[in-house]
Amino acid sequence: MAVYTDVSDEDLAAFVALYDIGDTLALKGIAEGVENSNFLLHTTSGYFILTLYEKRVNPADLPFFLELMRHLAARGISCPQPIAARSGAMLGELAGRPAAIISFLDGMWVRRPKREHCAELGEALARFHLAGADFAGQRPNTLSVDSWRPLLGASLDQADTVVPGLAAELTAELDHLESRWPTGLPAGVIHADLFPDNVFFIGERLSGLIDFYFACNDAFAYDVAICLNAWCFEPDLSFNVTKARALLNGYRQVRDFTDAEFAALPLLARGSALRFLLTRLHDWLRVPPGALVTPKDPREYLRKLRFHQGVSTASDYGLAP
Amino acid sequence: MAVYTDVSDEDLAAFVALYDIGDTLALKGIAEGVENSNFLLHTTSGYFILTLYEKRVNPADLPFFLELMRHLAARGISCPQPIAARSGAMLGELAGRPAAIISFLDGMWVRRPKREHCAELGEALARFHLAGADFAGQRPNTLSVDSWRPLLGASLDQADTVVPGLAAELTAELDHLESRWPTGLPAGVIHADLFPDNVFFIGERLSGLIDFYFACNDAFAYDVAICLNAWCFEPDLSFNVTKARALLNGYRQVRDFTDAEFAALPLLARGSALRFLLTRLHDWLRVPPGALVTPKDPREYLRKLRFHQGVSTASDYGLAP
Repeated sequence: MAVYTDVSDEDLAAFVALYDIGDTLALKGIAEGVENSNFLLHTTSGYFILTLYEKRVNPADLPFFLELMRHLAARGISCPQPIAARSGAMLGELAGRPAAIISFLDGMWVRRPKREHCAELGEALARFHLAGADFAGQRPNTLSVDSWRPLLGASLDQADTVVPGLAAELTAELDHLESRWPTGLPAGVIHADLFPDNVFFIGERLSGLIDFYFACNDAFAYDVAICLNAWCFEPDLSFNVTKARALLNGYRQVRDFTDAEFAALPLLARGSALRFLLTRLHDWLRVPPGALVTPKDPREYLRKLRFHQGVSTASDYGLAP
Repeated sequence: MAVYTDVSDEDLAAFVALYDIGDTLALKGIAEGVENSNFLLHTTSGYFILTLYEKRVNPADLPFFLELMRHLAARGISCPQPIAARSGAMLGELAGRPAAIISFLDGMWVRRPKREHCAELGEALARFHLAGADFAGQRPNTLSVDSWRPLLGASLDQADTVVPGLAAELTAELDHLESRWPTGLPAGVIHADLFPDNVFFIGERLSGLIDFYFACNDAFAYDVAICLNAWCFEPDLSFNVTKARALLNGYRQVRDFTDAEFAALPLLARGSALRFLLTRLHDWLRVPPGALVTPKDPREYLRKLRFHQGVSTASDYGLAP
């Protein structure tokens, strides 16, 4: 849950007056998202989300994220839409933070995804990749393979307090991944954080994707690998190949995998497991006193990483060659 | 901010199906209230608040609160309305908690109340008191004078760690109040927690009252005294007699004070200051590790208490006899 900044009624009225969305009727802080402060904004013209960008987001990246959301929606991808002020600006300032008003997207995230949800997700992810193809913005993936050595280094001396032997295990894994990390795979804009809480469904139907604040340019198959990790393990951390097959087949109905992607998938799955393991380990070892947000357990992703270490080809994920 | 309980999409769908409010489109946890978990619920028929009552609320009191809200609305008081399920029940169970669906009330609370807001508040408070006159429910004020001795006792040995000499000062104050606490004042249902965050405005106009979960039977003038404390001190804790006069005159436009109420007001103001001082002191000394809610500083109400100790008659609050 997250509302880091209080917004006064007076400051809000002045901000809303910059937009063509009527007068404010209500504002309620939303316990959602861990990076930013989000509010439900009700005005005489409807319901919106007001987002205040807190310090974990680089303000220089905000135009990339907001323009991407506009670009995707113009190509039929259901996602929240930044509302432009009368001046045309999608980004303003409120309570000393960069701030945007964004359309309210209906849907709920699924706590226990089923095979059908994974199939819809795969299809939506492929459509997202195709829709981003002609997006002009560029943002490097600052959490890909080049960042893992420094990330690991920052936690190395305390890693064994979490799991005995973890420092050595992750160093060996990183050596392996760095020497084999694939290049030249089909690439474009990826979401890079498409966990179940960022995918909305109404009933069984996917209603939209949210939270584009990790989006960047990288290999499409790496985005698929992130989803395999986030959607296809059961609560006991066993891998559900039925869900993986549904996800991968849903994807290839819209955009098929190349041979190079097929070959790279197990390595990409290991890499994406390591990426979330490293950021969670980093946060786990640095919980500030009185923290509002409970950090996620890094050991979940250690178990997932070890699973992928035992996978030899993408067929093990249920993907026919 | 508060969402203590997660609600799964599946449990929610089953719960919403008990009501005649269409199908669920969205659910977002709201960072508001410290006693309960609140969610914005969007269905095909509109926007609602879903409240899950957490352990600080006594389930036996819930029918009193919910029926009071219905009673008040039927008499023209703007406040959230419990929605009845098809069975007629206003109270159900969700995620193992008592749960209710309540209408969405527009408005924002005012961070820096002005004289005009205090005038509107006084008028609304008096209307609330009159509207509750024929309400059949009964709930004693469990946080009135009889509770203060045990409350103080639970913090007595640590009170001097907050302010040196506090234990002796509060014991003397309580002796004073217990021996003089008025009885027989005009009484009925009072809100008992009408702080600025429980009063909504749209622009300059009061749009409604919320959060009836401390409502009880007690003297009307005690409710007025709570508002004097909550609304009429400046951030530097100086008393703003202009705001107090506006509040009290707003009130008496609708319901005039009796002589006994006029005489009792300074003592009631001391009592209500002590009541919030004692509960804040209690919570301040018992912050659980990793608490999500920052406790309020009890010293604010010590300053207010000391102000009222220097008041001799209600004229000092700007109230003409």
